[in-house]
Amino acid sequence: MTGRLVKVEQRILAKNDEVAARLRRRFTDAGVFAVSLASSPGAGKTTLLEATLRRLTPGFRAGVVVGDLATDNDARRLAVGAGPVYQVNTGTVCHLEAAMVEAAVADWDLNALDFLFIENVGNLVCPAAFDLGEAARVVLFAVTEGEDKPAKYPPILQTADLVLLTKYDLAGVTGFSEAAFRRALGQVRPGLPVLAVSARTGVGLDGWVGWLRAGLDRVRSRAR
Amino acid sequence: MTGRLVKVEQRILAKNDEVAARLRRRFTDAGVFAVSLASSPGAGKTTLLEATLRRLTPGFRAGVVVGDLATDNDARRLAVGAGPVYQVNTGTVCHLEAAMVEAAVADWDLNALDFLFIENVGNLVCPAAFDLGEAARVVLFAVTEGEDKPAKYPPILQTADLVLLTKYDLAGVTGFSEAAFRRALGQVRPGLPVLAVSARTGVGLDGWVGWLRAGLDRVRSRAR
Repeated sequence: MTGRLVKVEQRILAKNDEVAARLRRRFTDAGVFAVSLASSPGAGKTTLLEATLRRLTPGFRAGVVVGDLATDNDARRLAVGAGPVYQVNTGTVCHLEAAMVEAAVADWDLNALDFLFIENVGNLVCPAAFDLGEAARVVLFAVTEGEDKPAKYPPILQTADLVLLTKYDLAGVTGFSEAAFRRALGQVRPGLPVLAVSARTGVGLDGWVGWLRAGLDRVRSRAR
Repeated sequence: MTGRLVKVEQRILAKNDEVAARLRRRFTDAGVFAVSLASSPGAGKTTLLEATLRRLTPGFRAGVVVGDLATDNDARRLAVGAGPVYQVNTGTVCHLEAAMVEAAVADWDLNALDFLFIENVGNLVCPAAFDLGEAARVVLFAVTEGEDKPAKYPPILQTADLVLLTKYDLAGVTGFSEAAFRRALGQVRPGLPVLAVSARTGVGLDGWVGWLRAGLDRVRSRAR
């Protein structure tokens, strides 16, 4: 890349980090556990979120910001919970930015929410560099994508707090080796926790919801 | 985006188009059918290419340029054909650019090749804007990604010449509706040809290899 492009990128990222820090303070002050989800297209972010919202309702209230180049398909699918849903259409932009999230939640009463889910554009590369003000970043890999994806897309894992291994019900039929996957992941981010889940069969969802509730407890113990 | 960023992007794309035009002339003059493949991570580009190279050998000679953020896993897998293989590691860059392809093939005798396959970084967004000098652009969607992906990632389809619907052997177990997929695709690019393939079972590979041979015949009829 040219020196000029690197400078422009650095300025964009610095501006993004400012907005993200402001958002993070707002989420923490409101006692909201903000979680972002990133993955390839079709790894099952929306399907997992649908199942998650169903499990969290009616005990908890969750807002959702979802990014796609085009369509409001996901926002319509995610209107199953007790909270607001906002669809961001990015056009040709390959990731969400903090300013998009800030605009999306501008009119929301964050104090009325327990969770905020931020579903990124389906992309394992570009979302890596953009802080969205989330308290935790979750990266999904579907068993159908093969075992070596962690080795081939390291940057997104550098800032991840949890990996979800999705479509786990298809591990058998696709011949997926969980050991090989965990080995590849361990070489990029040793010790990063992994939960195997299937939104279709419900396998692993108790553990995932438990992880979310523990995160909420942590935020609440810190909130004013 | 800021006006300045748009200008920098336009300059990068204009420069890329220049290099791509130069490459395209070289490929055509050498009688090489250059085909690029783009898809989500894990849609099966490399597995399909492995099966393709096996079918083309020994009758045809194919070179492969493959892009990944990291690792040379794919280049090692693709060393099954009769031609050269070059692994591009892009670091954090989310797509291949024409200059990367030009550097990759710099030492190759293009006249000794029939096909050139350019496997892009796994990404359904960023590769859309970058001409690589290919004669045809193939976009892969795996049945495991769901039916609505064409609607959600339209830019990559605007410059596509063929869609491959991969992992077709998993259509039944995943409950994939081919009709819904074709409907979504038809709304973005009506008339774009689709071939359903499975590298595992071999379904559809005859049609795919036939499409490649027809493309080679077209290039040869135009080459000097």
